[in-house]
Amino acid sequence: MQRPAILVLNAGSSSLKFALFEARQGGARMASGAVTGISTDTARFNWTVTGNSKGVQRDGAFPDHCTALDAVMSEVISNRLAALPVAVGHRVAHGGPDCDCPEEVTADLLARLRGLVPLAPLHLPANIAGIEAIAALRPDLPQIACFDTAFHNGLPRVAQMTGLPREIETPELRRYGYHGLSYEYIVGALTQDGVNVDKERLIVAHLGNGASLAAIRGGRSIETTMGFSPISGVPMGTRSGDIDPGLILHLLREAAMSPADLGNLLRTRSGLLGLSGESRDMGVLIERHDAAAAEAIRYFCYHVRRHLVALTAPLEGLDRLVFTGGIGANAAPVRELICAGLGYLGVGIDHETNLAGHKTISAAGSRVIVEIRQTDEEQVIADHVARLCVECASGRKEAS
Amino acid sequence: MQRPAILVLNAGSSSLKFALFEARQGGARMASGAVTGISTDTARFNWTVTGNSKGVQRDGAFPDHCTALDAVMSEVISNRLAALPVAVGHRVAHGGPDCDCPEEVTADLLARLRGLVPLAPLHLPANIAGIEAIAALRPDLPQIACFDTAFHNGLPRVAQMTGLPREIETPELRRYGYHGLSYEYIVGALTQDGVNVDKERLIVAHLGNGASLAAIRGGRSIETTMGFSPISGVPMGTRSGDIDPGLILHLLREAAMSPADLGNLLRTRSGLLGLSGESRDMGVLIERHDAAAAEAIRYFCYHVRRHLVALTAPLEGLDRLVFTGGIGANAAPVRELICAGLGYLGVGIDHETNLAGHKTISAAGSRVIVEIRQTDEEQVIADHVARLCVECASGRKEAS
Repeated sequence: MQRPAILVLNAGSSSLKFALFEARQGGARMASGAVTGISTDTARFNWTVTGNSKGVQRDGAFPDHCTALDAVMSEVISNRLAALPVAVGHRVAHGGPDCDCPEEVTADLLARLRGLVPLAPLHLPANIAGIEAIAALRPDLPQIACFDTAFHNGLPRVAQMTGLPREIETPELRRYGYHGLSYEYIVGALTQDGVNVDKERLIVAHLGNGASLAAIRGGRSIETTMGFSPISGVPMGTRSGDIDPGLILHLLREAAMSPADLGNLLRTRSGLLGLSGESRDMGVLIERHDAAAAEAIRYFCYHVRRHLVALTAPLEGLDRLVFTGGIGANAAPVRELICAGLGYLGVGIDHETNLAGHKTISAAGSRVIVEIRQTDEEQVIADHVARLCVECASGRKEAS
Repeated sequence: MQRPAILVLNAGSSSLKFALFEARQGGARMASGAVTGISTDTARFNWTVTGNSKGVQRDGAFPDHCTALDAVMSEVISNRLAALPVAVGHRVAHGGPDCDCPEEVTADLLARLRGLVPLAPLHLPANIAGIEAIAALRPDLPQIACFDTAFHNGLPRVAQMTGLPREIETPELRRYGYHGLSYEYIVGALTQDGVNVDKERLIVAHLGNGASLAAIRGGRSIETTMGFSPISGVPMGTRSGDIDPGLILHLLREAAMSPADLGNLLRTRSGLLGLSGESRDMGVLIERHDAAAAEAIRYFCYHVRRHLVALTAPLEGLDRLVFTGGIGANAAPVRELICAGLGYLGVGIDHETNLAGHKTISAAGSRVIVEIRQTDEEQVIADHVARLCVECASGRKEAS
């Protein structure tokens, strides 16, 4: 018998990540995988069934997201998984202004997303391709778009402001914030563990290849380090983070860089990769012992600490700090460097438990609780889909 | 009898400010004034003798800095002032990398400054014009250049880094920091008042039409909000402060702005002026009661507070906060908004003494001392000139 399942898709420019969850709120993950290298010569399809260490790997030609999705769908309904997809959830980078929750994909929504492409030129075209691939292959499946910006939609007006003059302001030119699905997951996980997030001044440091931090009060984002674009804030794997506007003007003027070259530089050749000249991977840099790698790590930690401390301003203090994301959850020396010298804010971490990667790493005397948590954006998306589609569908079925 | 005097010049693109000091360390200010509107139709020459409320005002045509300086020099040696200039000190916006102290103007230094113009394209050409005007009119006078960047030259390496990739890094592309002469003055004034600046974790908020903050430890700058350029950091009268790099790329790409237009926008049409749509003058905005002015003030204070709090990270806490500059020293509601909610850092200000503009405005229970101080960059310059020129000259005279 085939098990009803929710398919979660995260479409990048040359990749299609997917996960399969049981079709109910909090449903368990059944499988996950990815097609990488779409439209390149080195495409690969990997996936694993949850609890089974032996994954499936297949090379093949995937000229576009539709052929990649076709391969994914074949596996999903194959005997190995025997799943019956009943709805699809998409991770979508940008919902535009006034988007504060997941939305069912309609022709209107697709048109809106196409209009938003200038706000997220690297991510939205791929997200839209994923949605269109489902519409082409399985038009019967309801689709839900879950937005990385939605969690931050309630930012106070002053935190939404970009600093641009009123004369050229438009509703679209505002600070948005990203990684919202990750922050939403962490807030949900804390609540499930009995933490009263309504009362706490919370900072979540989502440090992965993309990295941002959010200040959360009353369970809502009140400030975050990324703003209009996901280039800003702290340095990342290949993105620069904040850069002096005068330096950007200098590069345009003196180095005669084109805006396109500049965008490419700040998005793909900066951050840990650019600073180290070696790798965008924090794990690799930690293992190396040369000066360039050490400097890249120091720069990263210095700016994460700076932003972390700045976020205590709108929070008016700090009660809990959660590290998550690939770096946040795994790089003990990075956590230690970030927290060093923050005793004056009540932050202290325990060297041994941090090194061991325990869940709680704050030192005995630390007033602020410091934690490591795994994030799971796909679970959040699956839960939204379950709530919006599956339960409605069963409601409809019962009613009919 | 003519009194020996040090002439201090601060040459802007269309202005020449000057001050006259007695020619000795800590010499009193004898007079000050400015020629404004150089090379425009509305040029004006204002000056006052210290202690005399009745100033002199003269309209006239000043096609360039040299004619403006000629008028200044005529007044300086006139009967009214009866001063004998013995040396000149210049405020110079940028000293380039490795510049950590004032320098006597030589042909080499002038050549170096001309080479630095791309780093400070708005300020250095005027500064150089002021130096050249003295060289033309009074080649006998020694000239000392005092740099706004020098105080920050010892920034730790991590604070000098711009975030640009190693592959395009050069020694010139680093964070510098500005307002160094103001910070130097404040540190000197604190020391004179018996404050042990070597032991304190100090933040100085220089909030004027240009605005920055510096974190000072052991009497030295360890971090500051402006970096490569004086556009960055907190919002200012007409400068934007930090702007999301992705937003800059968006304006170049989607709004098809040219780099020159963009530079003009971020330097001259942003900040308080752009946000309020009304005025760059904080005093004017405070008097108005419309929503746009209130929002501009709120944005300004929000970001000054955010940066102030961020600067506690490298300081590892805070012992003293000094407000200075036109806004810092005069705008009580701004100081109050900036400090609101910082009790968790030990910062509390007293509503009444703040409103009255007392020197010390921290509340009775505030662990951090909060002060208002007038800054005086011209005094710092005069003291440097006295030390470097006048005392050497008298030394030479005695020896001969």
